[in-house]
Amino acid sequence: MMKNLLSMDKVSTEEIMTILQRAAEFEAGAKPQLEKDYYVANLFFEPSTRTKTSFESAERRIGATVIPFDAAFSSVLKGETLYDTVKTIQQSGIDAVVIRHKEDAYYEQLLQGLDVAIINAGDGAGQHPSQSLLDLYTIFKEFGRFEGINVTIVGDVSHSRVAKSDATALKKLGANVQFVCPPQWQGEFEAHHNWDQLLEQSDVIMLLRVQHERNAAYEGFTVEGYREVYGLTVEREKQMKDQAIIMHPAPINRGVEIDSELVECERSRIFAQMKNGLYIRMAIMEYILKGRN
Amino acid sequence: MMKNLLSMDKVSTEEIMTILQRAAEFEAGAKPQLEKDYYVANLFFEPSTRTKTSFESAERRIGATVIPFDAAFSSVLKGETLYDTVKTIQQSGIDAVVIRHKEDAYYEQLLQGLDVAIINAGDGAGQHPSQSLLDLYTIFKEFGRFEGINVTIVGDVSHSRVAKSDATALKKLGANVQFVCPPQWQGEFEAHHNWDQLLEQSDVIMLLRVQHERNAAYEGFTVEGYREVYGLTVEREKQMKDQAIIMHPAPINRGVEIDSELVECERSRIFAQMKNGLYIRMAIMEYILKGRN
Amino acid sequence: MMKNLLSMDKVSTEEIMTILQRAAEFEAGAKPQLEKDYYVANLFFEPSTRTKTSFESAERRIGATVIPFDAAFSSVLKGETLYDTVKTIQQSGIDAVVIRHKEDAYYEQLLQGLDVAIINAGDGAGQHPSQSLLDLYTIFKEFGRFEGINVTIVGDVSHSRVAKSDATALKKLGANVQFVCPPQWQGEFEAHHNWDQLLEQSDVIMLLRVQHERNAAYEGFTVEGYREVYGLTVEREKQMKDQAIIMHPAPINRGVEIDSELVECERSRIFAQMKNGLYIRMAIMEYILKGRN
Repeated sequence: MMKNLLSMDKVSTEEIMTILQRAAEFEAGAKPQLEKDYYVANLFFEPSTRTKTSFESAERRIGATVIPFDAAFSSVLKGETLYDTVKTIQQSGIDAVVIRHKEDAYYEQLLQGLDVAIINAGDGAGQHPSQSLLDLYTIFKEFGRFEGINVTIVGDVSHSRVAKSDATALKKLGANVQFVCPPQWQGEFEAHHNWDQLLEQSDVIMLLRVQHERNAAYEGFTVEGYREVYGLTVEREKQMKDQAIIMHPAPINRGVEIDSELVECERSRIFAQMKNGLYIRMAIMEYILKGRN
Repeated sequence: MMKNLLSMDKVSTEEIMTILQRAAEFEAGAKPQLEKDYYVANLFFEPSTRTKTSFESAERRIGATVIPFDAAFSSVLKGETLYDTVKTIQQSGIDAVVIRHKEDAYYEQLLQGLDVAIINAGDGAGQHPSQSLLDLYTIFKEFGRFEGINVTIVGDVSHSRVAKSDATALKKLGANVQFVCPPQWQGEFEAHHNWDQLLEQSDVIMLLRVQHERNAAYEGFTVEGYREVYGLTVEREKQMKDQAIIMHPAPINRGVEIDSELVECERSRIFAQMKNGLYIRMAIMEYILKGRN
Repeated sequence: MMKNLLSMDKVSTEEIMTILQRAAEFEAGAKPQLEKDYYVANLFFEPSTRTKTSFESAERRIGATVIPFDAAFSSVLKGETLYDTVKTIQQSGIDAVVIRHKEDAYYEQLLQGLDVAIINAGDGAGQHPSQSLLDLYTIFKEFGRFEGINVTIVGDVSHSRVAKSDATALKKLGANVQFVCPPQWQGEFEAHHNWDQLLEQSDVIMLLRVQHERNAAYEGFTVEGYREVYGLTVEREKQMKDQAIIMHPAPINRGVEIDSELVECERSRIFAQMKNGLYIRMAIMEYILKGRN
C-alpha cells in the first residue's frame, strides 16, 4: 500500500482505480472511515488557490485536524533545510504533510529519516499527482473508460506538471495522448505545432495555462499571437466532435489559452474538475492516513 | 429572505431587526441552530484585524467549518479574475464567502453564475454592512430605539464605508444623522465643518478613522491640526450631554480623532462595539446559511 | 495560580514541576480536562515554524478552538497599538493569546485593562518560557533531577531568549550552568571563551543558533571561524562524557553551531525537544485556561 503520493510513475493502475472509486463514493455521499484523530499540515511554498483550498476542505471533510503553516513567514527564512522543517512539523504530532515546492523532486530528500506521509502537491516542473487523479476522474466519469480515448494536451508542455503527470497516467491506462505546442515548449515530448486534425479527433482537449510568471514575455509570443495559433477560440470549438469535452487545470488566462465565452460552455468541465478535485483529495487523504495504522 | 449581505441599501428594516434580535439572543447565551455542516471562507484582499477576527470567531461559534484563504499568496497573483477565484472556492464545497476587496461594489461581478453566499466585509469606499449592523446594535442596546436619536458622524466621510452604511440604515430607521468634516472630505454628503452645537445635542458621536494609508499626508492636515478642529478632545467630551455615547469603528489613531484618555472612558462604547460585532456576525452567518436550505 | 506565562523569573519551582508532570501525563496518553469551549489566538509578529506549529497543534489537542491571526496582514499595518490589537482580539471572545514580538517585555503594556491570558512565545532578546519548560522537561526525562546537573550553553548568549530563560530556571532548580561564547556575545553573563574542560564535564551541551538575521555578518566571524572555535564538531563530540546529551532550540545552522552528522546522533535530543514541546505546550495551555474558571 502506497505510503506517500509523490509522482504518478509510482502509482499503480490498481491504486488509481481504488482512489477513483472512493472519490465516486464520496461524491455520492459516503462517510469517511478514519478511526482515530489525524493531524495534517499543508506546506505551500508557492502560491496556490485551488489546490490548497481543495486539500484544506478535503482534509476537514474526512475529519482530520489541520495545523496551519505559513511558508512565507516560517523558519525557512532563517535558512532551515526542508528536511529539518518537515521533521519539525512531524515532531509537533503531524501525520501527513501536503507540500508544494519549486524544486523538482524536492521529496527525494524527505524519504529517509522521517515518519510523516508526504503528499506532493506540485514539485517544480515535475509532477502534480492529485491534479492528475482529478483529471482522470473527470475523464472516467465522462466516458466510463480510458482505453482508446483521444486526449490532446495543448500549451506549455515542458514546464507543466499537469502535462507530465497526466501523460504518464493516461498512457498507462490505455488512452492516446497527443501534444500541441510551440516547438520551444515541447521539452522531452513529441508534439504537433498546430491543431491539424486534432480538433476533430479529440475526445478531450486539455488546455494548459500559459505561465506568465515562469515564461518571461511568453518567450516570443504576444497574447494575440498565442491565441491565434494555439488558443481554443470560439471558432475552433465548433470543430470539436460531439461529446468531446474541454479541460483546463486553471487558473485560466481568459482570452489566451481559451476564449472567455467557452470557460463555462456546455463542453467545459473546467469548474467540474475543481469539484472533482475535492472528492479525489478526500480519497487520497483517507487512503494515505488509513495506511498509517 | 436575503441570500447575500452586500449593502445596507438592500437590507430591509425587518431584516435589520431580525438580525439585531438574534444577536441579542446570542449575547444572552442562545445556541446556534444550524442543522447541517456548513463550510465558509474569508477572502480578505485588504488588511484587517477586527473584522476578520470577528468573522472567524463568529463562524466557529455557530458551528461552521472555516477553510483558510491567504489572499496575499493566492492565484490572484497569477492574474485570475475575482469571479474565477470565488467560483474556485465554491467548487471546493464552500457555502459562503466573506469578502473584503478594494474595488467599489466588487460583488456586482459575482451575482451571476455562482451558487455561494457573499457577505461583503467592505468594498473599496463603498459599504461595510456587518459594521453597520453592529453599530445599530450598539445604539439600540443603549437607547432601545432609533427614532429621534441624534447621531453625529465625524471625520473622513467621503472615503468611509462605515459612514455610508450607517447613514443609510440610521435614516431609514428614523435617526437624525449629521456629519462633521473638513470640506474636502464630505463627498456626496451635506456636512458641518466644525462642531457647532453638535457636541451638546448628540446622543451618539461616531468618530471615523483618519485613513493615513488612503489620504496621503492627510490632504493638508497635520495630526495636531486635525485634532484641534475635529478631534474629540478631553475638553470637548465635557460638553457632551448626559447619557451620550462615543463610538469609533477602529482601528483608532489615538491623539488624532480622539484623545487617548477617552478611548476607554465611561461614555466610550468602542471596545463594546467589537464585542457586539461578534454576536452580530454570528447572527448574520446563521441567517445567511440557514437561508440556503 | 499563574494567570499568564511571561517570564521564567515569575514561574515558581512548584509551577514548573506541575507543568512538567502534566506534560509527562500527556505524553503517556492522558486526556485533556477542559470543561468548556475555549478560544485562543496565536499572534506571531516574528517568523516562527516550530514554536507556532507546536502551539497550534497543542491547542487543538487539548480541545481549544484556534482563531487565525495573520500579523503580516493586520491592522498593525495601520499603526494600531499592541494594546488595542490585543484588546480587539479579546473582544472577539478570545480567552488566551500566545504572542511573539520583537520588543523586549512587550507584555508590560498588556498587564492592565485586559482580561485575556498572555502566553509569551518570545519577546525580543528577552524570554521564551515555553522553550525553557520544554528544555527542562527534556533534561528531567533524561536525568530524573536538576540538582548537580552540569549544563553548558554555547553561542550567542546575549541575544538569546533561550539562554536567559533556561539559565534563570536551571539555576533555581539546582543545576550548574556555564556559558561558552565569543566575548562580544556574552552580554550580562560571565562566560568562557573556549571549550576548556567543559566538553568532558557537561551532562548537557546546549547549542544556540547563530542568528544571521540579527548579527550582521556574524560580527566578525566567518562560518568556518565560528565552527572552528565554538562549533560542536564530530571531533569534539567524542570528548563528551557517557550519557551526556546535545540540545539545540533550532532552527539549526548545520555546519555552523553543530556538524550536520551530529544532528540526529545518539546523543542528540534536538528533535526529541520538539516532540517534548508539544506535551509541554498542551500542559501550559490547559493550566492557563483552567485557571480562568
